[in-house]
Amino acid sequence: MVKPFGKVLCAAGSLAVLLAFFWRDTFQPEPDRVVQFAVRKLGGLDYLVLNHIGVSPFQMWGGDVEHTRWLMQVNFFSYVALATAALPTLEENHGSVVVVSSLTGKIPTPFTTSYSATKFALDGFFGSLRHELTMQRRNVSITLCVLGLIDTDAALEKTRGKVFLAASPAAEAALAIIRGGASRLRELFYPWWLQPVHGLWVLLPNPRVLQSFYNYSGP
Amino acid sequence: MVKPFGKVLCAAGSLAVLLAFFWRDTFQPEPDRVVQFAVRKLGGLDYLVLNHIGVSPFQMWGGDVEHTRWLMQVNFFSYVALATAALPTLEENHGSVVVVSSLTGKIPTPFTTSYSATKFALDGFFGSLRHELTMQRRNVSITLCVLGLIDTDAALEKTRGKVFLAASPAAEAALAIIRGGASRLRELFYPWWLQPVHGLWVLLPNPRVLQSFYNYSGP
Repeated sequence: MVKPFGKVLCAAGSLAVLLAFFWRDTFQPEPDRVVQFAVRKLGGLDYLVLNHIGVSPFQMWGGDVEHTRWLMQVNFFSYVALATAALPTLEENHGSVVVVSSLTGKIPTPFTTSYSATKFALDGFFGSLRHELTMQRRNVSITLCVLGLIDTDAALEKTRGKVFLAASPAAEAALAIIRGGASRLRELFYPWWLQPVHGLWVLLPNPRVLQSFYNYSGP
Repeated sequence: MVKPFGKVLCAAGSLAVLLAFFWRDTFQPEPDRVVQFAVRKLGGLDYLVLNHIGVSPFQMWGGDVEHTRWLMQVNFFSYVALATAALPTLEENHGSVVVVSSLTGKIPTPFTTSYSATKFALDGFFGSLRHELTMQRRNVSITLCVLGLIDTDAALEKTRGKVFLAASPAAEAALAIIRGGASRLRELFYPWWLQPVHGLWVLLPNPRVLQSFYNYSGP
């Protein structure tokens, strides 16, 4: 049931470059142009891996709604626009959309108001779209990847001294994302134990325990 | 532990009028002005009940990202802006923010891509903010209200022939919202059985069963 990996890395790489090229700082969407370019160069897409995020501070909510609006554009609206533009070629190839999210997109955590909002929004939108594709018998899978803290430089730098959690290796996370997408899973949790953690949070939420993993020594 | 209801209805009513007056169709936020007006007229706020929504079609995703963007402004950003503006007066009064959401803000459902995204975003943002208020010992509660199908004219009209679910009475829903806010609950499900339904969806999701409650007879 595993589809060939042929174009997945290639497409992810190309799209990353294209996004950097076309969108630069403003991240205004030109999704049709980006997808058309990718289709022209690759002859079609099997996988669309959506993984980019905007930089957001890891701190208490300070009231900057404009930042939230900008982050929603980068982390959410651009995902929606790119997936919409790519749906026809993905449908032709019985392809897959892979949406990279975070535990913070399943369980709200401190210091991440805006980021959580954008990642939760992805769950709502793409979860609903997944139902609709099934009901319309359009054979495009959607995989939501729920990642924990990953040991990229950016993530470690941002959370240093504020989170008491071990980080997981980025290379393993990348492999888990590719496997989840290729297996057409509905949701992929990495590390795996985030899935029971999420179930426990829904059934028996304990905010004090969750907060104890975060360091806040403010006023 | 139940706070006096004094200003809750009054505030909700005043805000509804103010929103209609200041925001009209564009729904551009003037949250400071709205909250200042309410504080001047009422001498402070105990409760902020956020309940307005923009009209969105109940249909399969058609690619209209601009509609999604507009709906996010009305259903999400305006909530964030109003709550932010009201936090100081709510903190003074050990008050409450009541955020009205939907089952579709916990479980993605068909025909609601954009709407689900906005309601999920509320869960992420206000769930994270709730942690932060606790950690800062700021005594403002946040209640997320998860409502099922309610028998308002608008909701029944919109879902007619498309959803096989019984609607619950709007008056009971309103009472449940007020009770949930006054009891400073973290989350309130109405009807109550939506909570186990949500737990079941997280532990043992069955998309086919969920989809069987929706009628789609398209191409």
